[in-house]
Amino acid sequence: MRIAAWLILTLSFGCGVTDESIREPAVAEGADVSWALAIHGGAGVIPRSMEPERAESYRLSLENALRLGSGMLDEGGRALDAVERVIRLMEDDPLFNAGRGAVFNHEAGHELDASIMDGRTLECGAVTGVTTVKNPIGLARRVMERTDHVLLSGAGAERFADEMGVDRVDPSYFSTERRRRQLESKQTESAATREHGTVGVVALDRHGDLAAGTSTGGLTDKLYGRVGDTPIVGAGTFADNASCAVSATGRGEEFIRHGVALTVCRIVQREGRTLEAAAREVIHEVLEPGDGGIIAVDAGGRLVLEFNTEGMYRGSADSSGRFDVEIWR
Amino acid sequence: MRIAAWLILTLSFGCGVTDESIREPAVAEGADVSWALAIHGGAGVIPRSMEPERAESYRLSLENALRLGSGMLDEGGRALDAVERVIRLMEDDPLFNAGRGAVFNHEAGHELDASIMDGRTLECGAVTGVTTVKNPIGLARRVMERTDHVLLSGAGAERFADEMGVDRVDPSYFSTERRRRQLESKQTESAATREHGTVGVVALDRHGDLAAGTSTGGLTDKLYGRVGDTPIVGAGTFADNASCAVSATGRGEEFIRHGVALTVCRIVQREGRTLEAAAREVIHEVLEPGDGGIIAVDAGGRLVLEFNTEGMYRGSADSSGRFDVEIWR
Repeated sequence: MRIAAWLILTLSFGCGVTDESIREPAVAEGADVSWALAIHGGAGVIPRSMEPERAESYRLSLENALRLGSGMLDEGGRALDAVERVIRLMEDDPLFNAGRGAVFNHEAGHELDASIMDGRTLECGAVTGVTTVKNPIGLARRVMERTDHVLLSGAGAERFADEMGVDRVDPSYFSTERRRRQLESKQTESAATREHGTVGVVALDRHGDLAAGTSTGGLTDKLYGRVGDTPIVGAGTFADNASCAVSATGRGEEFIRHGVALTVCRIVQREGRTLEAAAREVIHEVLEPGDGGIIAVDAGGRLVLEFNTEGMYRGSADSSGRFDVEIWR
Repeated sequence: MRIAAWLILTLSFGCGVTDESIREPAVAEGADVSWALAIHGGAGVIPRSMEPERAESYRLSLENALRLGSGMLDEGGRALDAVERVIRLMEDDPLFNAGRGAVFNHEAGHELDASIMDGRTLECGAVTGVTTVKNPIGLARRVMERTDHVLLSGAGAERFADEMGVDRVDPSYFSTERRRRQLESKQTESAATREHGTVGVVALDRHGDLAAGTSTGGLTDKLYGRVGDTPIVGAGTFADNASCAVSATGRGEEFIRHGVALTVCRIVQREGRTLEAAAREVIHEVLEPGDGGIIAVDAGGRLVLEFNTEGMYRGSADSSGRFDVEIWR
């Protein structure tokens, strides 16, 4: 009874978006597209010597994700829905370090993080350290829409998942052979060679609204309930119609320390600089080589995919017919 | 053995501050103090009808905390040490919602959060959801100095505390009668009347370095492992010698959504505006009335204590002889 009463109270607060809180899209000078989408599947040390079949698998997965989101946006779907749906697809794909393909932590288990943000209202939701939620991005969206909180963690987030009735899995669902081999090899390697997998999506829809989301299985061999930038609004994810939508991937601690996603948006919003200039400055002057990258889109549909690593699994599409998938520079 | 090897690896990374990563203090035009300090003990609905004895208790506690930090800074102590030590004192004081006086969560337990940041290096550390750590701010500092991570959560943070040998307490240590009565009354009240207790400290030392820290027992009656802004670097805490040091208190979700601490620092750093102007804009134009407040200090020792609530327990002192403690406007 007590929980039920709290939920009702929470629902009435969590959904209380007033007209005043709607963020008008920024004036889109020179815009020539009506929707735009970018996705990433992680950045880091991606060997160019990768087997061609393996690179082809990544390209196919990225194309499928891009196609799903493009179709939704082209038909007038909301940016927020495209972000959630495309991330769900990538979470279900064992290639990426998110959902099904999540890496192993030090105890050979899995702790997943995700966040999502609606640029129209600045509403946002995130979860960290969930272990049985099939699609963490979906739970993050429920935190956004069904509570007055932003971030839920661990056992508490699992209890919230119980009440929301989201799809659950046995933790073994996340235990893929490839990631187990990575755990075994990482436990003898230096931290410097860690792969920074994570998936993220940013979108501009035909209504002029922006959204961003990010999901990850974290760091291979991570200890101590380490939380990276993925569930941290302002670090790994940020979206504001008044500037842009950003999703990050890389050395999470650096993205938190420098507040990367928020900083890019604030430069665009407050300094009148282009998204490209803001992204380049933050990725190449604030961060260090090897730290990672971001994908971003502004209210005019300009897409930026900027990184300072060897590669970043990525894709971009817009209403002008752009449809690109790339791995290396 | 595995943990030991990981720790050694971590130590070598976590402490790897190079000369290049030292943040030079910003030019302090018009500065006329050699050190400065501000503290807060939470903002929110603080009834002016409070019993005089009770208000006097708060004033005495704030004065003691201010005196401790002032003494350290006056003798040439580091800002980072003053921030940690003063927050420890406030955590040990049952008056404040941090450490000993932490509020009860929905399950009548306690989950504590804290973060600390060194403006000289941008190194930072934070913990969320710890339950047996007497001084969460001390554990946050160890995350900063002894790991290559920024944020540790829940059971993982407790395991890290085991290895660091920090002071532990039985969870009942945090169960004070006053907070139990608050839990009982809050469970029948609306969320709008929640008190936003939290403690925070910002400091400039004689070496020109800035630091900030924040510690909290969270929201009374909180559910689901909710994480507020206190352990989120960029939201509740930020410090950068190139701009300022900020600690926040209030409705944590709003402080995350707007990246309050980082936004204030970026405005000062990138737009050449004064700390006072930046703080006023963020507290009164970005946030809504009732959301909370911040304390902040810049590289010139200018102190700002700005809030949009009825009151904020606060104190400020500097090398010119300033020594003020206030509760209401």
